[in-house]
Amino acid sequence: MTVVQLSGGVGGARMARGLAALDELDLTVIVNVGDDAANHGLAISPDLDTVVYTLAGLEGPHGWGRAGDTFAMNDELARFELDNTFKLGDRDVALKIYRTQALAGGAKLSAVTGTVAGSFGIEARIVPATDDPLHTMVRIADGWVTFQEYFVARGHQDEVLELRFDGADSAKAAPGVVEAIASAELVIIAPSNPPLSIWPILAVGEIRDAVEAHPAVTAVSPLIGGKTVKGPAGEVMAALGLPPGNQGVADAYAGLIDRLVIDSSDSDDVDSIEDIEIIVTDTLIEDPAAGARLAAELVGR
Amino acid sequence: MTVVQLSGGVGGARMARGLAALDELDLTVIVNVGDDAANHGLAISPDLDTVVYTLAGLEGPHGWGRAGDTFAMNDELARFELDNTFKLGDRDVALKIYRTQALAGGAKLSAVTGTVAGSFGIEARIVPATDDPLHTMVRIADGWVTFQEYFVARGHQDEVLELRFDGADSAKAAPGVVEAIASAELVIIAPSNPPLSIWPILAVGEIRDAVEAHPAVTAVSPLIGGKTVKGPAGEVMAALGLPPGNQGVADAYAGLIDRLVIDSSDSDDVDSIEDIEIIVTDTLIEDPAAGARLAAELVGR
Repeated sequence: MTVVQLSGGVGGARMARGLAALDELDLTVIVNVGDDAANHGLAISPDLDTVVYTLAGLEGPHGWGRAGDTFAMNDELARFELDNTFKLGDRDVALKIYRTQALAGGAKLSAVTGTVAGSFGIEARIVPATDDPLHTMVRIADGWVTFQEYFVARGHQDEVLELRFDGADSAKAAPGVVEAIASAELVIIAPSNPPLSIWPILAVGEIRDAVEAHPAVTAVSPLIGGKTVKGPAGEVMAALGLPPGNQGVADAYAGLIDRLVIDSSDSDDVDSIEDIEIIVTDTLIEDPAAGARLAAELVGR
Repeated sequence: MTVVQLSGGVGGARMARGLAALDELDLTVIVNVGDDAANHGLAISPDLDTVVYTLAGLEGPHGWGRAGDTFAMNDELARFELDNTFKLGDRDVALKIYRTQALAGGAKLSAVTGTVAGSFGIEARIVPATDDPLHTMVRIADGWVTFQEYFVARGHQDEVLELRFDGADSAKAAPGVVEAIASAELVIIAPSNPPLSIWPILAVGEIRDAVEAHPAVTAVSPLIGGKTVKGPAGEVMAALGLPPGNQGVADAYAGLIDRLVIDSSDSDDVDSIEDIEIIVTDTLIEDPAAGARLAAELVGR
């Protein structure tokens, strides 16, 4: 079975890990790059790296970085009065250096990501949504800031007033992305933050068109008991005018999805959401086994 | 007393540490940048960093890097098939990242070095010979290679046939260097490799002229018992046609120095070297105390 997943960071990475654990499943994970940034001159791709490390079984304990990494370099940055809020683990820096140098040498992010995934022995295809510049910008009371400024530097405490995706208008889907969606038997939208993690992927016109044209698109809601497990999805969605609960998730993907998978704790939402099929199951992916169980249910096994 | 020292890496750094330990001594260390290189996109200044770390009391045990550093990043580079022969310690990488970013932002190497030295609490002025590009190139049997290729990648096993200093013709001395030499009561050429570490400094015309014009230039020979403590100075000097022993050191600095300080184990050389004053003493700097003793002798205390 061929499956394509659209993915942000932690939630998407855990969903992908579940799918990758299933036999005879050809998986392509299309990953948000709207959060990508240069930090200390290093090319940072937070969601791509979270997906890579999670599929490699090496994910850090807090939703970023590598398990068991050390922070000698990051700590030392303070000596030079550099902002080290965005924590770069020592082993993780090697990946960043590799990517930075490869991109500087003219390689495409999709090619670099393929090499990185291969170096960790990952069989699934992990592909950035686009090789072109695409930056999620967040308007807060103080004005427009980058995603990293909003999320890391300011600790996602500001109210999100508006989002835009700089570069999206001219960004092309990365090689193979449109074909992968078109030929997939199932497209899964991971339980990631809809506006902040999935909208930047769908902001690439070619990808949005391919998803819209696909007959079997299943979104997994990031809500558990009406709230997100991690990150500010609920607050962001409310601030952007989306209704509360899973109706907001359904609205975030209006016209795109055929099924919405919601958590058992939110089963009341079934009655109020119209026009799409609702599946109620346990969606919390606390460990690899839970991810594999959910994945099996999504693909009908 | 005002003293200027011309310096390469380890030997020069230890000599500088000895001078810095003396009371009421105003020290400027002018450091070779001919070995500077970009490695994995990071701006590497081997001799500047060795001088900084040694004056900070943080020098690594093998003549490079920082004491007690870890190598998680460097080890991990191998996963991406990057050459990690030139070892970058995790804490050391922070300094490299700081310098790389500061230079990319338009700062001069001399200013960056001043900030770095200050961040380690170093009182001596540490100044690169030049802020301009200047690269020591080494001709070996296979052709011209960079210093790092010759020294690190090939382990200084090749015979050195010729040297050249790319960029030296148009390089200006870094700010304050010429003035520091002109106003110094004593100029010391450190016990560094004359062709590979000191010639690149003297290749900057303004610096050579200032040293030539100075009435009190003392070179400390890097030879102990006719051989160098570390590195390939003896072989390099022989290959470049310089006579063996301290005559070769004297010839390497012909027309520039007024005194040559040689080790007690080479006292026989006194008789054969003409035209300059020879001082015989113990020049091996095994520890900070030995460096301070030698420094005191050089400045006449």
